[in-house]
Amino acid sequence: MSIEDDIAALKGRVQQLEDTLAIFQLVATYGPSVDSGAVPEAGLLWTEDGYYDTDIQASAPQGTHGRDAINAMAEMIARSENGIAHVTYMPAVKVDGDRAIAVNHTSPCVAVGDDVRIARISSNRWELERIDGRWQTRLRTNRVLDGSAESKEVLAQGVRDTFPR
Amino acid sequence: MSIEDDIAALKGRVQQLEDTLAIFQLVATYGPSVDSGAVPEAGLLWTEDGYYDTDIQASAPQGTHGRDAINAMAEMIARSENGIAHVTYMPAVKVDGDRAIAVNHTSPCVAVGDDVRIARISSNRWELERIDGRWQTRLRTNRVLDGSAESKEVLAQGVRDTFPR
Amino acid sequence: MSIEDDIAALKGRVQQLEDTLAIFQLVATYGPSVDSGAVPEAGLLWTEDGYYDTDIQASAPQGTHGRDAINAMAEMIARSENGIAHVTYMPAVKVDGDRAIAVNHTSPCVAVGDDVRIARISSNRWELERIDGRWQTRLRTNRVLDGSAESKEVLAQGVRDTFPR
Repeated sequence: MSIEDDIAALKGRVQQLEDTLAIFQLVATYGPSVDSGAVPEAGLLWTEDGYYDTDIQASAPQGTHGRDAINAMAEMIARSENGIAHVTYMPAVKVDGDRAIAVNHTSPCVAVGDDVRIARISSNRWELERIDGRWQTRLRTNRVLDGSAESKEVLAQGVRDTFPR
Repeated sequence: MSIEDDIAALKGRVQQLEDTLAIFQLVATYGPSVDSGAVPEAGLLWTEDGYYDTDIQASAPQGTHGRDAINAMAEMIARSENGIAHVTYMPAVKVDGDRAIAVNHTSPCVAVGDDVRIARISSNRWELERIDGRWQTRLRTNRVLDGSAESKEVLAQGVRDTFPR
Repeated sequence: MSIEDDIAALKGRVQQLEDTLAIFQLVATYGPSVDSGAVPEAGLLWTEDGYYDTDIQASAPQGTHGRDAINAMAEMIARSENGIAHVTYMPAVKVDGDRAIAVNHTSPCVAVGDDVRIARISSNRWELERIDGRWQTRLRTNRVLDGSAESKEVLAQGVRDTFPR
């Protein structure tokens, strides 16, 4: 290979690493931003029309649509008088150009008095997109792990999507 | 340094970063693959003769030997009628050529009715190997953190093995 | 750009990636080192005068000052007869030369008999510094997430500090 080819190949590999870490950063920022009401950062993790497709919010049975609604959700969560932590575990990630998929577990924990309770543990598959040079969530599918085939399939699909081939 | 030397050094550093992220990916895929019965992906995280040396499976008191047994374990876990999540926390990792060590905590969480219970929290030390260009687990030592010296030594050895020197 | 410029730019990007992963490693090593009494590794995660500013230690109401005190804390934790795991979740990180900020949740889990209890869940903002080529913690602010504005502000400040701009 010529030096120019070597440099081009290195640039591609470094870009892939940067993208993977940017997606880790996005996933790791979700909890701290909604738990603290960090607006507008919470909303900027999503595309303008991003869809948080979740089965857990009694107040939003069809999930949460759009960046403004995510910001409103962060403001609502941060008003909680109990301690609350939306824990997002390290994901598996596959980047393909300006698109990426991530899969992980998440679990909100709630402090009530001296007890900390895990409210639920859920499967997550994230469809991410780079827009204006910044990774954002277009679709996050989140299902309570309750033994249902649907909740397991979210993980299984995410594993198939991200597995190194 | 010459340009050729610069490029060779960069290639080595990028390879090291790629290897570390590949091992993160492997550890992060363990839970989602066994919880969802994602076969063959669950098994491919291990070498063909990989050994999951664990003290937690009543059904396998000597741990789980070999990729086929890992796949059978994933199929068994995924049949659970309760929600179950094998959470693997971000590891510390040290790569040395085609071998690597990782250390972390893991905890399976089980949903029973409206409650989520942490079944146990364990110490883990992973011995990994690159075979055919893909990182795989040769040995994972997993001990319930119950106050015993043995369970702590798994973490202590992993910390010594992975600490930057 | 000239080849020399290309190589200089790549070196900078690779350095940034290495620094981010070094900080992941530091955060991931905290728990396994204190839970197992891995001295001196536990202490080396901090600057010599590092300050663990925490509201959780009855034995140290003003937090823990200095590397020697961190080592003493690790020795004390590792003497626990119950299983104990100081879980540190994947952080969001921003590196700026020889300084960095990280933000994450942490939660110590304690095994008592057949039960594992989350002792608390806390907000954390880490101020890190590279000294003698090794990342170390100068200040870690840790507050129990109990609904208080102060505990949320630790996360909010960390999110603002680390958000990609």
